[in-house]
Amino acid sequence: MNSFGRFLRMAVFGESHGEAVGVVIDGCPAGIPLCVQDFSSDLTRRRAGAEGTTSRREPDIPLIKSGLFNQKTTGAPLAILFENTDTISEDYTNLKDRPRPGHADFVAFRKFGGHNDYRGSGAFSGRLTVALVAAGVVAKKVIDPILVKASVLEVDGQTDLKTAVKSAVKDKDSAGGLIACRVERAPVGLGEPFFDSVESLISHAVFAIPGVKGIEFGAGFASGRMRGSEFNDPIETPDGKTKTNHAGGMNGGITNGNQVLFRIAVRPPSSIAREQDTVDLGTGQPAKIRATGRHDVCFALRMPVIVEAVSAFVLADFMLVEHKIPRILN
Amino acid sequence: MNSFGRFLRMAVFGESHGEAVGVVIDGCPAGIPLCVQDFSSDLTRRRAGAEGTTSRREPDIPLIKSGLFNQKTTGAPLAILFENTDTISEDYTNLKDRPRPGHADFVAFRKFGGHNDYRGSGAFSGRLTVALVAAGVVAKKVIDPILVKASVLEVDGQTDLKTAVKSAVKDKDSAGGLIACRVERAPVGLGEPFFDSVESLISHAVFAIPGVKGIEFGAGFASGRMRGSEFNDPIETPDGKTKTNHAGGMNGGITNGNQVLFRIAVRPPSSIAREQDTVDLGTGQPAKIRATGRHDVCFALRMPVIVEAVSAFVLADFMLVEHKIPRILN
Amino acid sequence: MNSFGRFLRMAVFGESHGEAVGVVIDGCPAGIPLCVQDFSSDLTRRRAGAEGTTSRREPDIPLIKSGLFNQKTTGAPLAILFENTDTISEDYTNLKDRPRPGHADFVAFRKFGGHNDYRGSGAFSGRLTVALVAAGVVAKKVIDPILVKASVLEVDGQTDLKTAVKSAVKDKDSAGGLIACRVERAPVGLGEPFFDSVESLISHAVFAIPGVKGIEFGAGFASGRMRGSEFNDPIETPDGKTKTNHAGGMNGGITNGNQVLFRIAVRPPSSIAREQDTVDLGTGQPAKIRATGRHDVCFALRMPVIVEAVSAFVLADFMLVEHKIPRILN
Amino acid sequence: MNSFGRFLRMAVFGESHGEAVGVVIDGCPAGIPLCVQDFSSDLTRRRAGAEGTTSRREPDIPLIKSGLFNQKTTGAPLAILFENTDTISEDYTNLKDRPRPGHADFVAFRKFGGHNDYRGSGAFSGRLTVALVAAGVVAKKVIDPILVKASVLEVDGQTDLKTAVKSAVKDKDSAGGLIACRVERAPVGLGEPFFDSVESLISHAVFAIPGVKGIEFGAGFASGRMRGSEFNDPIETPDGKTKTNHAGGMNGGITNGNQVLFRIAVRPPSSIAREQDTVDLGTGQPAKIRATGRHDVCFALRMPVIVEAVSAFVLADFMLVEHKIPRILN
Repeated sequence: MNSFGRFLRMAVFGESHGEAVGVVIDGCPAGIPLCVQDFSSDLTRRRAGAEGTTSRREPDIPLIKSGLFNQKTTGAPLAILFENTDTISEDYTNLKDRPRPGHADFVAFRKFGGHNDYRGSGAFSGRLTVALVAAGVVAKKVIDPILVKASVLEVDGQTDLKTAVKSAVKDKDSAGGLIACRVERAPVGLGEPFFDSVESLISHAVFAIPGVKGIEFGAGFASGRMRGSEFNDPIETPDGKTKTNHAGGMNGGITNGNQVLFRIAVRPPSSIAREQDTVDLGTGQPAKIRATGRHDVCFALRMPVIVEAVSAFVLADFMLVEHKIPRILN
Repeated sequence: MNSFGRFLRMAVFGESHGEAVGVVIDGCPAGIPLCVQDFSSDLTRRRAGAEGTTSRREPDIPLIKSGLFNQKTTGAPLAILFENTDTISEDYTNLKDRPRPGHADFVAFRKFGGHNDYRGSGAFSGRLTVALVAAGVVAKKVIDPILVKASVLEVDGQTDLKTAVKSAVKDKDSAGGLIACRVERAPVGLGEPFFDSVESLISHAVFAIPGVKGIEFGAGFASGRMRGSEFNDPIETPDGKTKTNHAGGMNGGITNGNQVLFRIAVRPPSSIAREQDTVDLGTGQPAKIRATGRHDVCFALRMPVIVEAVSAFVLADFMLVEHKIPRILN
Repeated sequence: MNSFGRFLRMAVFGESHGEAVGVVIDGCPAGIPLCVQDFSSDLTRRRAGAEGTTSRREPDIPLIKSGLFNQKTTGAPLAILFENTDTISEDYTNLKDRPRPGHADFVAFRKFGGHNDYRGSGAFSGRLTVALVAAGVVAKKVIDPILVKASVLEVDGQTDLKTAVKSAVKDKDSAGGLIACRVERAPVGLGEPFFDSVESLISHAVFAIPGVKGIEFGAGFASGRMRGSEFNDPIETPDGKTKTNHAGGMNGGITNGNQVLFRIAVRPPSSIAREQDTVDLGTGQPAKIRATGRHDVCFALRMPVIVEAVSAFVLADFMLVEHKIPRILN
Repeated sequence: MNSFGRFLRMAVFGESHGEAVGVVIDGCPAGIPLCVQDFSSDLTRRRAGAEGTTSRREPDIPLIKSGLFNQKTTGAPLAILFENTDTISEDYTNLKDRPRPGHADFVAFRKFGGHNDYRGSGAFSGRLTVALVAAGVVAKKVIDPILVKASVLEVDGQTDLKTAVKSAVKDKDSAGGLIACRVERAPVGLGEPFFDSVESLISHAVFAIPGVKGIEFGAGFASGRMRGSEFNDPIETPDGKTKTNHAGGMNGGITNGNQVLFRIAVRPPSSIAREQDTVDLGTGQPAKIRATGRHDVCFALRMPVIVEAVSAFVLADFMLVEHKIPRILN
């Protein structure tokens, strides 16, 4: 249930305020050069720091516990851990009875019969995305020279992101955002008709990221208002290059050799410093709650590298299934 | 690759102009009353006939080959076949060299090295959705009294659907559409944080339907332009009922007891009676193509029952995983 | 639950006295020549007829419903059906209350709450092995020129098989047997340490065949009484050929380039024409039962081709996982 | 590839001389009391120490990194690590060119293109069985009050185990052994006909343990020499209790309510202090090798607790699939 992938597979674990979060990656080809420094850039992109991101500061040092020898992958599972060091658990105790609107507090409590680690959202926390990013670093190496690149398009409906964040902070509020992701150099033929379509597996992975509420490929929702004569991308060359790219780089669930394109909607974080209406689960009476922990104002800001990570992972899986990457690199 | 589900699992097979299409459903609880008549209503909803739908007419009689005894499911796999009877294969031979813009012709040819059954789109055909609908009929029985209901919101950007279709037909064009789906009475607690979130599995299944280009849950893309104070749904009762439903009935990937809501964007069919630009794969030169087979003008019209089917299947799987449905019904 | 395989996957379905049994094979490479005649030899080997085999006679004509075009595999799922024609269901009605000793009657009834199709053992029937054999025919083509060959070593402890069977028939009894299987030309490197070892996957598949009670690889149980100095196979050449083959062609769960060797123990069929002690599930009182249907005296006789089938399937899966077989054949 | 289980799933990782070995367990019910002390007894049983076991001494302290809160399982994945502390890697460098007869050296080198961590057998090492034992401790809690109990039947063909080991040590040799395992109180109905039979999943798991070469259920290989009149277990009570237990507690792949019984053959360890014949992979010439690291003389001695662990894991998975264990314990 907490694992993903067919040929390349990851299992994530950990809680926000537990000892560690991590990932086990199985099926990675042998012989890929890998070292701790390779993770720095992507982990830094994900890390908090800018205005609008949480004040929690984790060093995010990847502890590679297995699968690496002489600085290359061995073909055995890679286990990568990140210790949690900057945890302040007392922030969260009052959430047990008063679930935050828009948050997983209520469902977590009900689903796990009260046994869930509720501190800092426990296993639901965005903290676990550090494990996804680590898996993405490996996946990006696997798919090289395929390139996955995501960026923030908008925050709170605005393209001037700094201003949008400042405004939300000032209002003690949080903000949603839109992310775009593109994949360059994906070969023709990844994906399967029906259940393992490119759209199916990318969306499966992307909706695993907390906060995502929508995804569209190519023209996406706009294609629902198009005619075929407008939507269909004229084919220009025998290798399948098209004049337009309304299909987002895939037909029939399979990559067509053009740029893969998709956009993602990210809701605003639920924890805000304003008072919100909830219910007291003990008394059953209406109650008020005001988030007091350390939270992002807009986690869309930290999300591009996470979207890249899961997308690269899906592509690596497709490339291995399709035998377009060898099991051993020399 | 052509199967889906964890506890309740379906494997689909068949081609548009082959002998049959079908589905094997594994993991279905024993003791569910089921007969051929139970399939009629949903199969009729999917079948062609109205203006804007293909002129191909299939009787769509489900042949239940296994898993049924004394008109109840036995707990063994259900195999359900639909014979193809109304096939006119000569329509398609010219597509081998001249792939239709917007269509899977090109990728199918390349992915399978020319061995694919290209007649009527072969394994990529919407014809296979009859198997999905059959699986959905079973799934709906499994999840009863949970109710899944989908409908067309728009065709070609218009809510007067008949007029929109007539206009597209008149223009020898095709049209996209928008579908809404809602789930009533889903209990709290379905889904898992991360990879098996409700959004992940529903989107995985929905993007298996040919033509889907986008999905959004609750406020969806609009949530990317919202503030938290607006998006967060105030909790009103101890059983989790909320005042608004921007979250679409789920938090942290898990159902919260409110109505599950999502919308789907469907692109226009690629086969249109107008001339379109493509390339001749034999000569490598630009070429023209005009679709001559029998096609839908707007397959969004036939899609609600297919969306219901895959969504019901996902819910049945979740209900079994969560032990909210027994393995044996009495 | 009724499917098997990672990259190459089969889902079996059907009941002994239902309409049909069959198999859906997913992940088969495209471009493999295949026709109905290819199945004849192996299906004949499995079919009844000789003394000691059931008097039920099925034509066993494979109906290939999908995945084949121009007499080659397309890369899409292969669905193969076998209709049941020679069924005499009234034979079995008395078994509902009086489970046969050694038979699945009792557990089937209990597991499926009485909803199981009990006619001719339903989904537990050896009849379903026709689907395994069909999958094996495909798998043998996939792994060519790797050769899998099984044969009967003993029946009822004797190597003169005809005499052994005659004696059991005369005594109104049934007999067990031993099967040997060897694989020639398997390359070095199939299998994984731990869970996907060659032994793990072969044994998983072999124990799916009704009646198997034991499996041993290489020296097998005898190795438990050996010293290392005797068991260890001296390596003679740089490509790994060994002087002896106590390991049965694998080390650490991975093929080592020598012949793969294993032996299988098959219990005697439970249905015998003698009176046996059971209990009446209705009254709870001791009861007698005498099997009256048509049964094998020794199904070990028909098993070699079934063992070959599942073993070839496992090898094909390994070869695809290891990228030693292309996804498309030309 | 390094994971196992359907509903309850474990992924193992680590190498003999790497930093750590460990396991991630997914799907464990919430609310099960668990603490570090719970692991002591089983880890001690597995640990070296007695004559005939390796001189490597690891403290084997389970580091539970996630999935535990207030000393109970949370329902989120359990990650359990064991650090490697007593590693002497220089012992193994000469094995790179001269593979040990009977050992995974050769196949590991070939399979992973020389990238494998060859120190102490790397990912093939029996060291990883500590992770299996840890998973077993959790699984035993899940299935309580079902009891799994394994023991050594023979070493080197003798039942006086101490004498047998002393003799092998004196001869600078190693010895094989036989293990018996029984399961008490397994309910009727676990397992599925065909691929997920009890035999299939237990054998799959048991052959993941390094050194196992054979498995038999109930009468096992002896049943291949029996008549049905002897083998069939007369049913004595309406709950399925039988007079004899040649079937080993299962019919048709499904538990029948009697004791589950199986036996396992364990080969002698390949590393012995005597000179053995091999080939030098560099020169291609015959060569001699004498193992100098620290090794077990007979790992059958340490194996019962490992067999219990994987068997308990399989049973826990079956119990969850069959809904005989709740997802949340109170």
